[in-house]
Formats: sequence, C-alpha cells, structure tokens
Amino acid sequence: MDTVDDLDLLTQRLSPGAMTTDPDLLQSYRQDWSFDPAAGTPVAVVRASTASDVQETLCFADSRSISVVPRGAGTSVVGGSTAIDGAITLSLERMRSIRIDASSRTAIVEPGALTNDVKAAAAKEGLYYPPDPSSFEICSIGGNAATNAGGPCCVKYGVTSDYILGMTVVLADGSIAELGGDRIKDTPGLSLTKLFVGSEGTLGVITELTLRLIPQPPTPHTLVAFFPLMSEAVTAARDITNRTRPSELEILDNAAIKVAEEFLRMELDTDAGALLIGRSDAGNAAEAEMELMRTHCEKRGASAVFVTDDHHEGELFIRPRYAVYEAFEQKGVVIGDDVAVPIDKLPELTDGIADIANRNNTTVVSYTHAADELTHPVLNYPVADEAAAASAAAARREIYDLARALGGTVTTEYGVGQHKRGNLSNALDPVVVKLNRAIKNAVDPNNILNPRVLIP
Amino acid sequence: MDTVDDLDLLTQRLSPGAMTTDPDLLQSYRQDWSFDPAAGTPVAVVRASTASDVQETLCFADSRSISVVPRGAGTSVVGGSTAIDGAITLSLERMRSIRIDASSRTAIVEPGALTNDVKAAAAKEGLYYPPDPSSFEICSIGGNAATNAGGPCCVKYGVTSDYILGMTVVLADGSIAELGGDRIKDTPGLSLTKLFVGSEGTLGVITELTLRLIPQPPTPHTLVAFFPLMSEAVTAARDITNRTRPSELEILDNAAIKVAEEFLRMELDTDAGALLIGRSDAGNAAEAEMELMRTHCEKRGASAVFVTDDHHEGELFIRPRYAVYEAFEQKGVVIGDDVAVPIDKLPELTDGIADIANRNNTTVVSYTHAADELTHPVLNYPVADEAAAASAAAARREIYDLARALGGTVTTEYGVGQHKRGNLSNALDPVVVKLNRAIKNAVDPNNILNPRVLIP
Ligand SMILES: Cc1cc2nc3c(=O)[nH]c(=O)nc-3n(C[C@H](O)[C@H](O)[C@H](O)COP(=O)(O)OP(=O)(O)OC[C@H]3O[C@@H](n4cnc5c(N)ncnc54)[C@H](O)[C@@H]3O)c2cc1C
Ligand SMILES: Cc1cc2nc3c(=O)[nH]c(=O)nc-3n(C[C@H](O)[C@H](O)[C@H](O)COP(=O)(O)OP(=O)(O)OC[C@H]3O[C@@H](n4cnc5c(N)ncnc54)[C@H](O)[C@@H]3O)c2cc1C
Repeated sequence: MDTVDDLDLLTQRLSPGAMTTDPDLLQSYRQDWSFDPAAGTPVAVVRASTASDVQETLCFADSRSISVVPRGAGTSVVGGSTAIDGAITLSLERMRSIRIDASSRTAIVEPGALTNDVKAAAAKEGLYYPPDPSSFEICSIGGNAATNAGGPCCVKYGVTSDYILGMTVVLADGSIAELGGDRIKDTPGLSLTKLFVGSEGTLGVITELTLRLIPQPPTPHTLVAFFPLMSEAVTAARDITNRTRPSELEILDNAAIKVAEEFLRMELDTDAGALLIGRSDAGNAAEAEMELMRTHCEKRGASAVFVTDDHHEGELFIRPRYAVYEAFEQKGVVIGDDVAVPIDKLPELTDGIADIANRNNTTVVSYTHAADELTHPVLNYPVADEAAAASAAAARREIYDLARALGGTVTTEYGVGQHKRGNLSNALDPVVVKLNRAIKNAVDPNNILNPRVLIP
Repeated sequence: MDTVDDLDLLTQRLSPGAMTTDPDLLQSYRQDWSFDPAAGTPVAVVRASTASDVQETLCFADSRSISVVPRGAGTSVVGGSTAIDGAITLSLERMRSIRIDASSRTAIVEPGALTNDVKAAAAKEGLYYPPDPSSFEICSIGGNAATNAGGPCCVKYGVTSDYILGMTVVLADGSIAELGGDRIKDTPGLSLTKLFVGSEGTLGVITELTLRLIPQPPTPHTLVAFFPLMSEAVTAARDITNRTRPSELEILDNAAIKVAEEFLRMELDTDAGALLIGRSDAGNAAEAEMELMRTHCEKRGASAVFVTDDHHEGELFIRPRYAVYEAFEQKGVVIGDDVAVPIDKLPELTDGIADIANRNNTTVVSYTHAADELTHPVLNYPVADEAAAASAAAARREIYDLARALGGTVTTEYGVGQHKRGNLSNALDPVVVKLNRAIKNAVDPNNILNPRVLIP
C-alpha cells in the first residue's frame, strides 16, 4: 500500500474535514514564527476536533513510524512547530472550548483556545489566569503548556507550569493518560504533569488542560523611569527586587526606546540608556511599592520618573514594551529571541547586542524581564531579503556566544525547538542528555513525536 | 564473597565513619514518623558527608542489586524512609551546609540541612524561603524536595517545587546529574528538575539544591473566627479565597479546638464547630484584607472574630493549629495523615472523621488548608498499645474510603511512601501506572532506589 492509500485509511477514521493534503494548505503549515526557510513540508495536516482524532492520528503514525509535529497556533520562534518533510502536522487549532468553574477556581480548556480567550473567560468570573506571554493574543493555551510559556507577570505570579493542575494527553501509541487532577497537590506517583509541561510535543499531545485561577488582582499602579545608563537601571532593579515583588519589572535598551518612540510618538527620552517599567498590583500596598521603586530609581540616577495609579495611563506607560513588535511587524520579518545572563552582566549584554547589530548591519533591540534576568533580543529585517536574513541569523549566533561568554544561557522562556537544539548540545551535561533520551525513549519508543526538537 | 566482606569493601571507599552496621544504630533507622511496626532492618546505614559517599554507595548497591532507602530527617508519615530488610539506608543528615547568595536571591544547600535552618539563614539576609511544612523544625530540605512538601503558606506562595531552581542528583548507577540551574527558567531539555521533585528517592539521591528566595514579606496580620458550624466556616473560606489571597487560611474542627484548648488554656470556644485562622502579609493592603475576611466571616455566621496586626499576638492566634501536635506528642504516638475533598464536602468529611473516631474508639482531630482543600486528620494513641494502634490503622483506612466516596483523593501533601502505595493502586489510571513504571525503569533499571514507595 502506498502512503496515499494509507492516508485515505486514516481520513476515514477522523472527523469529516479533519485531514487535508491540499498543497496550498500544506504550505501554510510549513513554518512557524521562526520563519525557517529550511522548513519541511508535511505529507498531511490533521486539524483535530476531538481527542479521538488525535488518538487515531497517533496510532496510525506510530504503527508506521511516521513523525508527527503537534501544532497549536504556530507562534513558536524557535521552530517548535516547524514542519518536517513527510511528517504529519497535527494541529489543535479547532479544539477551543473553555469552561470556567468559579466555585473551584479552575478552567477546563481545550488546547487550541487562545491564551487571551482563556484570560477573558476567567475575567468574566472575576478570576485571573496570570501567564502572559507577549504573544497572548495569538498563541494557544496548549502551546503555552507545551513550552511552559512565561511573560512579564512571572516575576510575581510564576510561569504556565504553576497554573496547570492536570492535563489529558494522548501518548504516541494512542493511549490516553489523565495526569494530575484538579487540586494543587494531586500526584499519586511521579510528577508527570510537570514533566509533560514544557516537553514541546515530544512526549504526548495535550487534548485538555485543567488550569488554576486566582482572584483578579486590583488595577496595577505603573512607574516608568529613564536612566542615562543601562547599568543604573540594572542596579535600581536589583534594589527593588531585593525588597519587594513588583507585578512587572521590565527594562528596554536604548535601541528599543528609539523604535518605540518612532512608532508611538509619545515623547520618550530617546537619549536614555534604559527605560525601566515597573508595576504593582498590591492594592492598598501599591502606593508604598511605587514610592519604594521611585526612591530606588532616583537614588540610582534616574533622569525622570513618572508614576500613575490610573488604569488607562498605566496601559499607555507600558505601551513601549509592546510597540517594538508592532513597529517591526510593519517593517518586515520580526524574530524574537531570548537569552539570560546574571543581572549584573546585563549592561555588557545589551551593549554587546548593539555592537553585534552594528557589525552585522542588522536591527536588534532588546528588552529584559529584570527580576528573572531574561533578555529578549528582537530582530527585524525586510521580507524576502535573503542577505538580510543571513545577517540576522549571524547576529543571533553571535548573541548566543556572547550570552554564554557572560555566564548565561540561550534557552529560557521561548523554548528550545528545532532552532536551539543544535545550538545547545555542546552546553549540556552528558548525564543529563542521557536522562533526556532515556525518558523520551520510555515514553515514545518509536520516536515519532516532534523528533527534531528539544531532546538533545 | 559474602555480604559482610562486601560491605567492608564499600566502607573503604567512604568517608571515615560513614558506614555503620552496629545493631542498635540500625534499629534507630528502621522506622520513620509513620512508626510502621512492620518496618525492616537495614543491613547497613551509610551517613554520607560528601556526594562521593553517595556515588560510592549507589555504585556498590547497583552492581549487586541491593536496595537503597534514601533518608533525610525521617519525618515521613507515610513510610517514605522506612527501612527495608537487607537494604542500605543512605542518610543525608550529615550534609548540612547552607550558602545564601543575596545578590541572586538564591540559596545553595545540602540536602540534610533542616528546613528551619534554611529559613533562618535566608532571613538573616532579609530574604524568605516560603515553604513551611508543619515539621519545618525537624525535617530536612532534601526530604522536602523529595516529597514536594507543602504547608499553610502554599495558598499564597506555592509548594517546595516552586522554589527549586536546580539540583544535583546522584543516579542509581552512581553518575551525577546537574539538573536545572540558578534561574527560574533554565531547562534546555525536559523538565527533569520538576520530575525529580516529589519522586521520593525513587529516581536519584539529591546532594545539593539551588533554591529561589524572595524578599521577606511584612509582618502578617492575623484573624481568628469561631463558627457554630463547619459548613459556615467553609462558606466563609470560599468567599474569601474567591476575592483575595490570604497568606494562610486554616480551619480546625471541633475536636482539634478542644485538644488545643486543653493544652493551651487560652479560652478557645470549645463548643464551636470550626475555628478559622486567616493571615495576610500584604503590607499596607493587609488591613483591607483583614476587613474583607472579617466581613465574610460575620456574614456567614461567625460567633466571634478577632483581628490583630501585632506580631506576638498573631503568633498566639495561630498557636492552636500547632498545639494539636504538641498536645498529642505528650500523650503518645501521633500520626498525621492527609486527604483532600472538594471544599463543599469538607463538613461531611470532618463529621465523618469524628464519627469514624468514635466508632473505632480512637482519637482523630482535623485541620484543613482551606484554600487548597487539603485536610490533615491527626491520630493519637498510647505508646506500645497494639490494640490502640490497630484501631487507629482501621480508622485511617475508613477515612481514606470516606475521602474517596466524597470525590476526593488520599495522596496529597505528605506523599505516598510505602504506606499509601498499597492503598492507591486501585484508584489509578492504568496508562498512568504504565508511564510511571516506564520512567522509573528508564532511570533506575535495576530498581534499587526506594523500591517500595510511590511508583504504583
Ligand atoms: C510576538 C511574539 C511574542 C512572544 N512572546 C513570548 C513570551 O513573552 N513568552 C513566551 O514564553 N513565549 C513567547 N513567544 C513564543 C510563543 O508564543 C510561545 O512559545 C507559545 O507558548 C507558543 O504557543 P503556540 O500555540 O503558538 O504553539 P506552537 O508554536 O504551535 O507550538 C509550540 C510548541 O508546542 C508544541 N505544542 C503545541 N500545542 C501542543 C499540544 N496541544 N500538545 C502538545 N504539544 C503542543 C509544538 O509541538 C511546539 O513544540 C512569543 C512569540 C511571538 C511570535
Ligand atoms: C509533625 C509532622 C508534621 C508534618 N507536617 C507536614 C506538612 O505540613 N507538610 C508536608 O508536606 N509534610 C509534613 N510532614 C511530613 C514530612 O515532614 C515531610 O514529608 C518532609 O518533607 C520529610 O522530610 P524528611 O527530611 O524528614 O524526609 P524523610 O522522611 O527522611 O524522607 C522522605 C522521603 O524523601 C526521600 N528523601 C529524603 N531525602 C532525600 C534525598 N536527599 N534525596 C532523595 N530522596 C530523599 C526519602 O527516601 C523518602 O521517600 C509532617 C511530618 C510530621 C512528623
């Protein structure tokens, strides 16, 4: 039997319209937001609408050793959902239901639901789902679980993993495992829920998640402070996080400030070496937290500090951080990356990034989750310009080298994917590599699940 | 070569005085705080003082398929560190160093350090290590990591797992794996740190931990409220946790109030059906949180509510919760257990426990982490009274049945250990059982590490 007949067999077992082999459609599932020109082309795309579609697809693939790339909304910037030639891409985008149980403060969601829709459904009940990757309007909750997504609120509220109480996963052989439960501690065995979170589709396909929600915090107060030097902003951030827990603490470098100002025209100080944005949602304690932040910023040399307790003004104050992406999208391809260095090395990192951008004749700006020591270099170049793409790629590699030289790492919030797996292996403890492989092998013996990502 | 010669071989490779086969000493390592009369006797106890002692012990045991029971402070109440006949008990009690790095807000600790010593060392630098199992003065930080210990502060601050950034573990074959790192997101591969947390010594032996610390929160305000009925306290707790995040929220049942009053003589209302203890450490927002709690307590029928912002008075207010253990220790054997039911079933659970205690002619009181729906029945009976021990054991089994009948679980905060593994297996999804086994087998192929606990 050739593959086409075989695929017909699978089609018959799936929900009507779930599978497609239409070449145009296959094209649109090749790349994710890492825009890898070398992305493969799937032999078929299955858009599951039930767990049974997922089971059928995996049973089919496992018995034939066909690779399967699980895909949420495809916003991975590291090639996590980049297609593989001859593999099936299994999209969860049609499974989007969201059910909030206010009495137990949980949400039962299907993986394809957009993060923002989950947040909105919780908010309707006065509840809060904290994790806030910048992509929250366009990424899926299943993708967040599969990558353990983080965001600015992590400093106070933790990452996606902290909000997943339980999940349903379909394993490579098509069997269904119910992991965890609906309580914060509910693990009669190994912590499998935690293991599957962040596994980037290599261990199983998530078909349902039980999320923990918390009461909606009060409206945040917001502070912005401009510093002549990055090093001053870093010292202020350290002072602040040693004393209190802001709900956000971000630092933009000079290049990011300039891009934001050009886009927003809100009279940002484009000569500043750094812009620090801090928030507190601590209710009656927010004012004191803001004063503490202001004091430390001024002590460390801030040239200007503004504070507001107004919701709309606050949203305006944090706009520069998001404007970078919006500005770049209008201009061409945007690549968000992430590296981490010890916080006192941040000035060397951002200076180094500016230098790397210059030398490679490409555009890179950076912003940092200051409390978590996590820096996002964001690259931008014209669409369909191969030379520019190559320069950007070269700059990324240099940034990785720099981060490592400063005692940092290159795999943090955005995941490993196909892109960083290659850039990593030399950095890894061989015993840890062996452990990863042994566990992958135990759970997915035919190595069909996203075989090119994560696992070193 | 017989075992004794063999052990001599091992002794030579260990730090001087690390190994003992002295019968009296072996006796003292038989039981943990589950006081299992059927506990085995180890063939030897190794008290490691270096990672190399751990490596040598595991290499030795692995090559001979001798079981090894890792042991911290032995406070497990589920037989997690109960000895096995013929096995080596590997104690980490001598490895106790604690190093605080204030600038990165981390602690590098050896596993044998007592939780309280870690907390104290952090506090000296103005930092806070939140997890607070009630046993914090007598349990080890390595044991906390191996069981993913929780406590009253979990409602706001999460469990042990949330504070472990990295760990060094010795695997069954003696190889050393460095898992995680020193940042909140640092996983270039599967989330192995999270997998090893809570693995109860079945996957490896922890020899070092990197802990995340946070700034010391302000002095908490404390509220106590007496309710005629448990159901009223439960409703109040639900109202509260739907609106705000207390730093503690505990409910004692009538039996617990009585025991505490008898011990403390502080004029607790011994007719009350429930005592709710709530705290807020939210600084300037604490007063408003207290008022919110007070309002909800009064609305739901509290007969008396007291609030204090004074540190010493606050410590007095929370004494009843801890007094239960102290009172019982003076009287005989204390067994702390834990079960969880959906919060609206709590009145049925506590009534049922009172009834079970009566029928079995034994003593059981209960307190509940109200936000996490986690109830601790605490049992008490005279030392060396076999009939009383049997009654208590019967009562425990009935409590498990009741919790399950109410839609709850019997494995929550205290772990699974030897004790609950048997009581569990029927409750578990066979696919999950298979996954647990497959991973255990991949990591510890000769099944030497704590082979009687956790893994179903
Ligand atoms: C503009 C922009 C900003 C971003 N900002 C952030 C940020 O602040 N923080 C952050 O963490 N990330 C960020 N990202 C990266 C990305 O959005 C996250 O990794 C997100 O979690 C991916 O979700 P997705 O639904 O798009 O997943 P996809 O890209 O479709 O997949 C990501 C990975 O998850 C796997 N996967 C997806 N769904 C499932 C499933 N149901 N079961 C099993 N595996 C599955 C895939 O196989 C793949 O390995 C950003 C991306 C962009 C484009
Ligand atoms: C009075 C009392 C109150 C308690 N209250 C709480 C509570 O509020 N919350 C809570 O969660 N628990 C509580 N417990 C249970 C117990 O204290 C915890 O489980 C604690 O984490 C065990 O620590 P330990 O050092 O005593 O570990 P041990 O009892 O020695 O061992 C526990 C488990 O961890 C493994 N282990 C220990 N050290 C290591 C290591 N270095 N590497 C690998 N594995 C290891 C052992 O093999 C065993 O499976 C209480 C116990 C008592 C007696």
